[in-house]
Amino acid sequence: MKSLIVGQSGGPTSVINGSLAGVYESAKKQGFDKVYGMLNGIEGLLEDKMIDLDDYFKDEHNLELLKRTPSSFLGSCRFKLGKAEEHEDYYKKIFEILDKHAIDSMIYIGGNDSMDTVEALSDYGKQHKKHQNFIGVPKTIDNDLPITDHCPGFGSACKYIATTIKEVICDNAVYGDTKKTVAIVEIMGRHAGWLTASAALAKDDTCPGVDAIYLPEVAFNIDEFVKEVEELLKKKSNIVIAVSEGIRTEDRRFVCELLDTNLQTDSFGHKELVGCADALGRILRDRLGIKARPITLSTLQRAAAHLASKTDLEEAIECGKLGAELAYRGESGKMVIMTRLPGKTYKIKYDVFDDIHKIANVEKKIPLEWIDVEKNSVKQELIDYIRPLIQGEVKQFMKDGVPQHIILKK
Amino acid sequence: MKSLIVGQSGGPTSVINGSLAGVYESAKKQGFDKVYGMLNGIEGLLEDKMIDLDDYFKDEHNLELLKRTPSSFLGSCRFKLGKAEEHEDYYKKIFEILDKHAIDSMIYIGGNDSMDTVEALSDYGKQHKKHQNFIGVPKTIDNDLPITDHCPGFGSACKYIATTIKEVICDNAVYGDTKKTVAIVEIMGRHAGWLTASAALAKDDTCPGVDAIYLPEVAFNIDEFVKEVEELLKKKSNIVIAVSEGIRTEDRRFVCELLDTNLQTDSFGHKELVGCADALGRILRDRLGIKARPITLSTLQRAAAHLASKTDLEEAIECGKLGAELAYRGESGKMVIMTRLPGKTYKIKYDVFDDIHKIANVEKKIPLEWIDVEKNSVKQELIDYIRPLIQGEVKQFMKDGVPQHIILKK
Repeated sequence: MKSLIVGQSGGPTSVINGSLAGVYESAKKQGFDKVYGMLNGIEGLLEDKMIDLDDYFKDEHNLELLKRTPSSFLGSCRFKLGKAEEHEDYYKKIFEILDKHAIDSMIYIGGNDSMDTVEALSDYGKQHKKHQNFIGVPKTIDNDLPITDHCPGFGSACKYIATTIKEVICDNAVYGDTKKTVAIVEIMGRHAGWLTASAALAKDDTCPGVDAIYLPEVAFNIDEFVKEVEELLKKKSNIVIAVSEGIRTEDRRFVCELLDTNLQTDSFGHKELVGCADALGRILRDRLGIKARPITLSTLQRAAAHLASKTDLEEAIECGKLGAELAYRGESGKMVIMTRLPGKTYKIKYDVFDDIHKIANVEKKIPLEWIDVEKNSVKQELIDYIRPLIQGEVKQFMKDGVPQHIILKK
Repeated sequence: MKSLIVGQSGGPTSVINGSLAGVYESAKKQGFDKVYGMLNGIEGLLEDKMIDLDDYFKDEHNLELLKRTPSSFLGSCRFKLGKAEEHEDYYKKIFEILDKHAIDSMIYIGGNDSMDTVEALSDYGKQHKKHQNFIGVPKTIDNDLPITDHCPGFGSACKYIATTIKEVICDNAVYGDTKKTVAIVEIMGRHAGWLTASAALAKDDTCPGVDAIYLPEVAFNIDEFVKEVEELLKKKSNIVIAVSEGIRTEDRRFVCELLDTNLQTDSFGHKELVGCADALGRILRDRLGIKARPITLSTLQRAAAHLASKTDLEEAIECGKLGAELAYRGESGKMVIMTRLPGKTYKIKYDVFDDIHKIANVEKKIPLEWIDVEKNSVKQELIDYIRPLIQGEVKQFMKDGVPQHIILKK
């Protein structure tokens, strides 16, 4: 009799439930008798909140629905476990609960903070001679985890951003030379500009593409921005600009901070970044007397499962599957990663990374050589890196005109 | 030798190019030798800017691409012709240009303001014994044209809104009871709440639906809103609210005006409505100390051709086709309308409305008996009215991970 528990953590993505589906399918196939899902991540686990996934997913149709359901089916948390020295009560409690349910393995699907949790629990378990093992499965739209080529969740967000910006460019050009129009599209990504860079993928034979891309990797200069817009408007009437929510001025202030004094911080001490596009719009109005339309993609970019990338979903499922294999083999403190194989055709090798210490709490940013700072643009290498990740569509199960999902029974 | 010119006007929709495709196909079939497209509506026509649509759409693949391209392929304008008594120069110029190119018929695809133009040109032509005839084809995401059961463009926007809100509700619930979350989704519609009402269509077996809907048809009371949110949060942790950009307090002030003194007016004297969700979020923060996430669907709701309703697209095409038939028959000052036939199965009859005077400049609002004012919700009749309009999906032509469109050659 072997049991596994799986949890989801951090911000949701369009395909994080794909990884959950992969874990479940593979865990049952490996030989786990019970597969539990912890509710709301480690925070729910501490309160002994879990469900038996058989209750939902023995039915294959439900498993297919799960793969098409955005957000985290099991719920998420932003709870930080803290170090064992400081919060040993949490650690003791978690192992108590795992023991109580005779759970042997735990898989945590998440980003940097979640890998931190996997690492901490694995270390604590080893130190205290516990038999449980802990595996991390990567997830983040931000694509800021190191070591792995990219993260499940990123490709679908990019596909949504590229498609939406293509449509926004069409819309913004509708008045042509009869009206100057500026649209500023604000894209998620606190410190890394991967998502914002995907705006470049809107450009093709039938779309002129965005006119400028501003990334958090490059210090943002307000005067130069205003001048750039002014110059662009001399050449064309309708412009679309992509900006990361995380752009900062040379002195490390977020652009939205320049106008809004009401910034709050979340439970991790991260600053809430709202209204960067709005702030830039106001600056353009005040300095150039023009009206710019701020378009904030908000949570839509991470929740738009109706436009998920098939490649991304398949990879999310595969990462989950490998996670369950590793768990069954008794590996611990390891994370599933993806390695891009050399060659013209895009191909991924699923792999294991041993040293989770090197993953947790490290943020991978865009290499500067992939950014064209002069032109406020990105280089072909970056487009070539992202392009394979947005390929393919996922057939939705539609009913009454809207896609069908699966949610927890109340 | 018979020639037709077609133009597009006002705000774009996901399927306005479907009507253009319908006009072109049907016009050629009827026997028009030449089919011109005016660039940027009547404003471009006044400058003699037009293209021969054969140059693009003799190629059937291009015509299929056109049906999948958001925004107005020919460009649009928000130019108001004004009355003939005041601006006879415009009228003379237009007929001069039509005569110069031996154009017999004009079709204008648009909303209220465009029908105004069709009416004015038709009346002027009749008064001055001109041979040209003028036909209106309806278009507007707002669904505020009277007489016609609904407008092409509305169904696709509703499908986008219902789908997106379904995804937003999933996303917003991710932290469950570990975190109180409030999302406020701002939806277009200056005076009529049709689009905002479509948020109700997110609810089904796999989605609890939105928790409140605020429409411009009902006076908005800030105190009651705050109280409603407070009550909702006592019952559940995660709430999603849909609001129209056009909600106003009892004294007719837009909610966004309560906070923002920087409102501007567009060329029609319409007030720019920005930041209503943002304003409500700030009010909740100040009064209840909670953080609400404003999500503004912005132009995405009218440009998301990737999620167009098949029913809506087909109707847009049919309206265009009938428009060309009427034009060929020499009818003038008439608009294509759709009549919903009685019976359980949704069926539309395409029809002609003679008295365009009754259409231009009249705004159709939601009947009050379809609104549940007490519950900040809409009644089943309204859901039943919208549901058939969002049925079916349009297969996209994907290339490199994004949908393909067609745009004007430069």
